[in-house]
Amino acid sequence: MVSGDEPEAMHQAMAGALGAALDDIAAVQRRAREGGTAENARWPMIVLRTPKGWTGPAEVDGLPVEGTWRSHQIPLPRVHDDPEHRRMLESWMRSYRPQELFDSDGAPLPEVTAPLPAPERRISASPHANGGLLLKDLSLPDVRNHAVEVPEPGKTRHQATKVLGGYIGDVIRANPRSFRMMGPDETTSNKLDAVFEVSGRAWDAELLPTDEHLSRDGRVMEVLSEHLCQGWLEGYLLTGRHGLFNSYEAFVHIVDSMFNQHAKWLKVARELPWRRPIASLNYLLSSHVWQQDHNGFTHQDPGFLDHVMNKKPGIIRVYLPPDTNSALVTTDRCLRMRDTINVVVAGKQPALSYLSMEEAVAHCTRGASIWEWASTDAGFEPDVVLACAGDAPTRETLAAAGLIREHLPELKVRVVNVVDLMRLLPAEVHPHGMTERQYDALFTVDKPVIFAFHGYPWLIHRLTYRRNGHDNLHVRGYKEEGTTTTPFDMLMLNDLDRFHLVMDVIDRLPGLGVRAAHLRQRMQDERLRCRTHTREYGEDAPDIRDWTWSG
Amino acid sequence: MVSGDEPEAMHQAMAGALGAALDDIAAVQRRAREGGTAENARWPMIVLRTPKGWTGPAEVDGLPVEGTWRSHQIPLPRVHDDPEHRRMLESWMRSYRPQELFDSDGAPLPEVTAPLPAPERRISASPHANGGLLLKDLSLPDVRNHAVEVPEPGKTRHQATKVLGGYIGDVIRANPRSFRMMGPDETTSNKLDAVFEVSGRAWDAELLPTDEHLSRDGRVMEVLSEHLCQGWLEGYLLTGRHGLFNSYEAFVHIVDSMFNQHAKWLKVARELPWRRPIASLNYLLSSHVWQQDHNGFTHQDPGFLDHVMNKKPGIIRVYLPPDTNSALVTTDRCLRMRDTINVVVAGKQPALSYLSMEEAVAHCTRGASIWEWASTDAGFEPDVVLACAGDAPTRETLAAAGLIREHLPELKVRVVNVVDLMRLLPAEVHPHGMTERQYDALFTVDKPVIFAFHGYPWLIHRLTYRRNGHDNLHVRGYKEEGTTTTPFDMLMLNDLDRFHLVMDVIDRLPGLGVRAAHLRQRMQDERLRCRTHTREYGEDAPDIRDWTWSG
Repeated sequence: MVSGDEPEAMHQAMAGALGAALDDIAAVQRRAREGGTAENARWPMIVLRTPKGWTGPAEVDGLPVEGTWRSHQIPLPRVHDDPEHRRMLESWMRSYRPQELFDSDGAPLPEVTAPLPAPERRISASPHANGGLLLKDLSLPDVRNHAVEVPEPGKTRHQATKVLGGYIGDVIRANPRSFRMMGPDETTSNKLDAVFEVSGRAWDAELLPTDEHLSRDGRVMEVLSEHLCQGWLEGYLLTGRHGLFNSYEAFVHIVDSMFNQHAKWLKVARELPWRRPIASLNYLLSSHVWQQDHNGFTHQDPGFLDHVMNKKPGIIRVYLPPDTNSALVTTDRCLRMRDTINVVVAGKQPALSYLSMEEAVAHCTRGASIWEWASTDAGFEPDVVLACAGDAPTRETLAAAGLIREHLPELKVRVVNVVDLMRLLPAEVHPHGMTERQYDALFTVDKPVIFAFHGYPWLIHRLTYRRNGHDNLHVRGYKEEGTTTTPFDMLMLNDLDRFHLVMDVIDRLPGLGVRAAHLRQRMQDERLRCRTHTREYGEDAPDIRDWTWSG
Repeated sequence: MVSGDEPEAMHQAMAGALGAALDDIAAVQRRAREGGTAENARWPMIVLRTPKGWTGPAEVDGLPVEGTWRSHQIPLPRVHDDPEHRRMLESWMRSYRPQELFDSDGAPLPEVTAPLPAPERRISASPHANGGLLLKDLSLPDVRNHAVEVPEPGKTRHQATKVLGGYIGDVIRANPRSFRMMGPDETTSNKLDAVFEVSGRAWDAELLPTDEHLSRDGRVMEVLSEHLCQGWLEGYLLTGRHGLFNSYEAFVHIVDSMFNQHAKWLKVARELPWRRPIASLNYLLSSHVWQQDHNGFTHQDPGFLDHVMNKKPGIIRVYLPPDTNSALVTTDRCLRMRDTINVVVAGKQPALSYLSMEEAVAHCTRGASIWEWASTDAGFEPDVVLACAGDAPTRETLAAAGLIREHLPELKVRVVNVVDLMRLLPAEVHPHGMTERQYDALFTVDKPVIFAFHGYPWLIHRLTYRRNGHDNLHVRGYKEEGTTTTPFDMLMLNDLDRFHLVMDVIDRLPGLGVRAAHLRQRMQDERLRCRTHTREYGEDAPDIRDWTWSG
């Protein structure tokens, strides 16, 4: 460490420190080249400690300034109207001897510019500071190789993140030097551990015989600090590489503020023509609000979606794939994007699949579509639209559609699933936004729309308040009711369950209320039955747990 | 440090460590009592390091478990159907020798319970673990003593946080042992430094002769870590005291996730009858999006309001005082509350005052009211409602009202200011919410409402989407456009300036568009003039900067 206030002594000390550091670096390199390993090399570090406000005014108005907190910001506050302050400023500035550095036109003298590196060797010209210059497309494996078999909609169960783990492993295999996955110690907990068949966790410290999946060159970077994960990934993307951050949905809020700054950076960078596009920042959120296992209320918060949507719409993408194949298609697309921030929410538990790979590609391309096999309005105007976004709400919507088909067969029901949430925004607000005609055709302008949503219900209103028929839109979602309980009880606590959705249809469809009062009462009884079952057995009733679509 | 796997040796080592620690504590106390100071006392700490899964199964299915990561969560995963796992579980459980600890009914033996402290001495019974038991009302100074003189609305300027600093200083003076202010090194930057006349910053380390406002017993706790500030304040409140967290508005997002957990804690605690209410957590946000001085886009984010409103409405309060006296009244009320989280956004720059202390009390009690002196609809239905929330939007709304009065004198304009944002929610959703009748009377059911809002505009839609006349509501606010520029340029970048508000009235009021096209064009010219001025002089045009209300 060097500390001093005598410039000449300082110059010599600094030169000496630099010389010693360069010798140390040469020794590290020699050992690595001769011994064949650079492991645990200790690189030199120079710590330069100077007085705060060094070489500035020592004292102003009788108070010490140099070397104190007073030299922060404006050491001479009254230069405008205090001749003494002005004189001190001049003498301070002259202490740098500008006449020895600049010519009479104010240009730096040749001896000042001579030691500068050639332009392309300057730090600011490093391509790593404009990572898009170095960016190469990922070599992406065919997502179809990981498709799950879905012979009929809503009959078979798959674990979306488990399948995604295999796909991401393939991505790592095909791009061993340019793709990383960061996460707060949740790769296994989020069921992505198939990646470990391809690459381990990056690990620099001691290795024990019992360790598994640790590797000096692991492409999975885990540390129980969302801040570090976010920082690592930002640095990796900004220097021209690709990656993905997987996190528990509730705890990704830890990086809200860091997300803000990256989003603002992207917005400004897009306006600078010399900044080349970088790979998008991908969040894969799992262990979400509707599937908590042994965790409870603390782990229930889908509000990151609200948070990201406050940023400039053009750079934000939010996807809620309803099943495994759509999660694959969505993730594949996110890995191809540039200069955006993508959020994908995917489940980790066995859950019903609805779409074959071909259907998933078509659905994700549309972003939102009518599920014809679940609808009964073909060729007619629907009486009611059941919309949904997210895996659990989609299942409940389908179960509600089944109940209506059974008990109110005369109703014409349209089921709409939204996988790309940005489709709901107006086309002039977001590049994925639907035109007015598209939206009106899908959701109608005058029919009740019961929207079962993964997150806080008001987010859907915030996206659609300019739409025709917004008064007819009724959204169910997470309203901050929760505890450690069963999946279906969680839905009931928030009025997002199939029975409540049927009650909502009865309540909202003009003229149906009185006629369907019996059914409405039965739906309440069903809720009571299910609640009683959870309280007695600690799990969901078998008919709920094992429900499948029977169209 | 103690480490071992031999229980008897461990017991002895632990007893030895405890004895040594108690001796150390006695020595510290003796020195303090004899020497009169406990400064820099080093309290003992026992570090107990044990193998992970200690005393659990050493090996399961041929793999080491005790002392490895495999003992995390479920060391014996197949107890249900693997007799060997079941046998191991039984032998593990029996290793604790339960027959020596419990009687035949399963109750702990007297020799187990004998060393336990009496019930009221148990850690769980400490009143500090149920802080409401210890909570005493603050002794609050009369906020009127700090009132600023406002002889006429919109003529004089005051700095809200500067005046608040004096009031908070008085609170500290009257409550020297039960009130603290936490903040990330921004007390002075947020202009609250009048508190330092009463108490310094808490400081435990070395003191230098140049230090100011540092004190061993300072009631202001500053550290440039919002996480620490939040944690300190939560601990202080949970143990029965009172406090306030002041922060830059943009960077309070750093504690989004910590806020979530405190909000969830409060929601659950309110449902537990034995949990006594604790003092509310108060956030005072300043250096807000509309007044950035030398800071820019990175410092512009009013989204904490959106974040807090995702939590259970009953525990959330958000206030946007339009001027200094209303900021005083609001803060005084927040310091009286229990079991809520209160957010107050207040400006730090000189800004127009509109309300005398009496008027501020009335306005803050209503939460939202018609400003009659600025309105021209007395005795009539208004043609248009100009609503506003936040200091800068309020000024722009009043300036727009003045322009309309001048150029469209036949229009009946109602100016409504909202200080308590929760008033906009329906009465059945929030305890402060307006009934339908109140809301309809204030905002009309069929007239255009141009709402100038401090934050992201969709937050107002999210609060009002159930309201009558919501289709007629047009909100202006921050839409993520910003840079390092002048205050008025910031407003123009986001279409929140007076001229754009007049254009909005012209665009939204049926039948006005064609007739007022000349005025609309002049408003565009005014925006161009103001923009040109900022580009030429680096500051706002004098008529904008010095504008006052002339009713």
